[in-house]
Amino acid sequence: ALFVERIENKPNNVVIILADDGGFEIGAYGNKIIKTPNLDNLAKRSKLFTSAFTSVSSCSPSRASLLTGLPQHTNGMYGLHQGVHNFNSLNSIESISKVVKQHGIRTGIIGKKHVGPELVYPFDFSETEENNPINQVGRNITNIKLLVRKFLKESANSSFFLLVSFHDPHRCGHITPQFGPFCEKWGIDGIPDWNPIKYDPRDVILPDFVPNTQSAREDVAAQYQTISRLDQGVGLVMKELEHYLEDTLVFYTSDNGIPFPRGRTNLYESGSKVPLLVSSPKSTESWGTKTNDLVSLLDIAPTIYEWFRIPSPVIHRNPHKKLSLPGQSILPIIDDVIGQTRDYVYLSHNLHEVTMNYPMRAIRSNHYKLIHNLASNSPFGVDQDLYVSPTWMDMMKRIRKKENLNWFITLKQYYYRSEFELYDLIVDPLEKNNLASKPVYDEILYNLKEQLLKWQSKTEDPWICSPHAVLEDKGSYKYSPQCLPLHDDL
Amino acid sequence: ALFVERIENKPNNVVIILADDGGFEIGAYGNKIIKTPNLDNLAKRSKLFTSAFTSVSSCSPSRASLLTGLPQHTNGMYGLHQGVHNFNSLNSIESISKVVKQHGIRTGIIGKKHVGPELVYPFDFSETEENNPINQVGRNITNIKLLVRKFLKESANSSFFLLVSFHDPHRCGHITPQFGPFCEKWGIDGIPDWNPIKYDPRDVILPDFVPNTQSAREDVAAQYQTISRLDQGVGLVMKELEHYLEDTLVFYTSDNGIPFPRGRTNLYESGSKVPLLVSSPKSTESWGTKTNDLVSLLDIAPTIYEWFRIPSPVIHRNPHKKLSLPGQSILPIIDDVIGQTRDYVYLSHNLHEVTMNYPMRAIRSNHYKLIHNLASNSPFGVDQDLYVSPTWMDMMKRIRKKENLNWFITLKQYYYRSEFELYDLIVDPLEKNNLASKPVYDEILYNLKEQLLKWQSKTEDPWICSPHAVLEDKGSYKYSPQCLPLHDDL
Ligand SMILES: [Ca+2]
Ligand SMILES: [Ca+2]
Ligand SMILES: [Mg+2]
Ligand SMILES: [Mg+2]
Repeated sequence: ALFVERIENKPNNVVIILADDGGFEIGAYGNKIIKTPNLDNLAKRSKLFTSAFTSVSSCSPSRASLLTGLPQHTNGMYGLHQGVHNFNSLNSIESISKVVKQHGIRTGIIGKKHVGPELVYPFDFSETEENNPINQVGRNITNIKLLVRKFLKESANSSFFLLVSFHDPHRCGHITPQFGPFCEKWGIDGIPDWNPIKYDPRDVILPDFVPNTQSAREDVAAQYQTISRLDQGVGLVMKELEHYLEDTLVFYTSDNGIPFPRGRTNLYESGSKVPLLVSSPKSTESWGTKTNDLVSLLDIAPTIYEWFRIPSPVIHRNPHKKLSLPGQSILPIIDDVIGQTRDYVYLSHNLHEVTMNYPMRAIRSNHYKLIHNLASNSPFGVDQDLYVSPTWMDMMKRIRKKENLNWFITLKQYYYRSEFELYDLIVDPLEKNNLASKPVYDEILYNLKEQLLKWQSKTEDPWICSPHAVLEDKGSYKYSPQCLPLHDDL
Repeated sequence: ALFVERIENKPNNVVIILADDGGFEIGAYGNKIIKTPNLDNLAKRSKLFTSAFTSVSSCSPSRASLLTGLPQHTNGMYGLHQGVHNFNSLNSIESISKVVKQHGIRTGIIGKKHVGPELVYPFDFSETEENNPINQVGRNITNIKLLVRKFLKESANSSFFLLVSFHDPHRCGHITPQFGPFCEKWGIDGIPDWNPIKYDPRDVILPDFVPNTQSAREDVAAQYQTISRLDQGVGLVMKELEHYLEDTLVFYTSDNGIPFPRGRTNLYESGSKVPLLVSSPKSTESWGTKTNDLVSLLDIAPTIYEWFRIPSPVIHRNPHKKLSLPGQSILPIIDDVIGQTRDYVYLSHNLHEVTMNYPMRAIRSNHYKLIHNLASNSPFGVDQDLYVSPTWMDMMKRIRKKENLNWFITLKQYYYRSEFELYDLIVDPLEKNNLASKPVYDEILYNLKEQLLKWQSKTEDPWICSPHAVLEDKGSYKYSPQCLPLHDDL
């Protein structure tokens, strides 16, 4: 047979359920208002991670990083894939779907793809925005259910890797304003399986980093409704998987933080910390437990390779050098193996929309986060979707009227950032007080910078010398790359 | 037949001879030191343009703009194509080679391609860095001669479009330092047709914008030697074309200015003004004449479509809008038709290397140039090739030793630019005195800004609202795009 035969009770299959811009508005994560019974049920048969991070808080770069195990600066997806943004991963990169296919595992994607080129991200079964209206494969939960059924039927006798990639709860207002800011008004009659749940803006729990305004409350209430649709979709998908669960590893996570100021596109906790549930049938003792261990979505690819007992690919991005995946499998954490925790997770962002150049690199320990802003002279960008959101539009109106933003920082602080930002996450979880210039933190700063540079070197970051030097890594510098200084402190 | 049959003495063919980083170091342009007898001979059967501009001073973006007739912000090639830079034109764009192929004209490229994807830039005959060592097809003039011969033989009975794309005089030192900074030491034994000409650094004519140092003189002397190789290559190509010249339109130009500080990657005259010779067998009266008329390399595509009597393509980059090429044929200028001159040429740059984000838009009249720097808070970037050049390395050494640069501006002025730069080119051809903040120029500034914005709108520039606003052009803004202000002047 073309595909590896499925063997009952063996580690045969992997399913990733991915939310688009989904945050911690989930019962299992302690939210008492939102109704997410299906995600809560999944949590009951999962290990729940409280400290999981996407390596980049932007849709295409995050998906490319998840699927390759490589940060955006390594895999080449520096910004959004679609339209004029036009970013793609490098042809030399290997992705999960490409690698496991080569080992006879059937691959499928249902919903939002948002990465390319096809050469790097091939799937045997593909129902995405490339061949469907995006809402029909990303938000129509009945359709999603039927597509999962179809994929499973076609994969009946083989191992499989399936990515179910919801477009919910991504905001709708930017492209299809007729459906409401979060598509909460979309498809009420057209989705038989959807039982819409409405939330009162007065009841929602406003995340600490969101301005405390009526507009933001309404924005969050609409998001809740959309998450409940996603949740019902998760229930339908899990029902389809019913007879496969004994040999299927299931993930639930999100590509990035919620689309609010200081959320998506930011490397603050509010933009980069994501929910992560991992349901392993091989580790039923882990079901319903939590861990605070630091993990990165860059660890998902190595986890899946370990699950399938396939060696992690060696990447030949540079003709005279081999690059291995920087992440580690999280299976030992699920199995509670001592000493498997990481000291750090790393983050790397360049652009979101092509007009929004704002490269950042960051390192996070359990205690501190250091962000290196490589273009800190320029203001931080605002994307097209965020700008027209009720929350941001209201902020701009307040700025024009010189009214209070009811926000924990000023707009000036949001736009203009220091080159280095160091936060003590224990005393300052909102990352408000930058300690980078305080002499008492010199040693901590020095050590974190050194670790971050090591990681940039290991992952062959083209920005490793930015912003004050030029990387020379060709010709006579081929085997000993160097940062040559710009002397720009004039 | 598959191809349009060639008819003697009809406007059948087009050849573009393209230099890589070539400037005005040409006898026909008044340089009395350099020996370029073959370019000078071509000038004798051409109209010579003294005010021709590339729309962008960076290799891949310039080639993509030349071949599509669309600025880089429209065609999608925002920076370099190769390696980690990974830029590509949008699939929806039409190029000369793609369009004329569809009309039965045989297409060929010999030498440096440096653009993609293949879908947008297909050629029937392709001998480039994609299937050859770049020096062999870009600098080995004997090999280039034989490839032209092969192409012409295979095209014997059809009309053709041929791009002969030299890699000379591009600097060599960055990638292959063993061949010398300008490859002047390369191939002496291996290129039978090359008769190397050496120049004494004391004799060279230093362009006004280059630092007056011994290192720069040596750098320019090496460049002269490499241009003489290019020149001999041009002689060989013209010899091969001998029997086709009666029905072939021949262009000689360069993708960008010379690779010296304030040259390549800059929109100053020194980076964006390029040589342009156009030899039209239909206009022998124009041979040996000059024109000061402003023209843009964006005009080449419409010129070629007119020559072949093919309608210019309509671009469907945006599903609900048609975009036509912004340039105009220059055939009327060659024929000296009155009233065909342009009031302005336009320039547009985003990146060169992917780490070098520095978007700029510019408009140039016969009198003024206005540059809009969209990321003026950040220092202007230095590319890997320029940094290791003798000229720049010497500048850095002088900066470290606090010695005089012998340059017409300071390094600080080079790195840090105002958002708007306005120059009076008649009194200040070196663009040293920025007039943008002088009240007496308010009206001129206002008018140039308005013209520039009109062009950005016409060419669907995604950066049209940058840097102080966000472009909204989807959803409810689909038919009436707007710039929504960031209020970043805090
Ligand atoms: Ca997203
Ligand atoms: Ca060039
Ligand atoms: Mg795609
Ligand atoms: Mg190419």
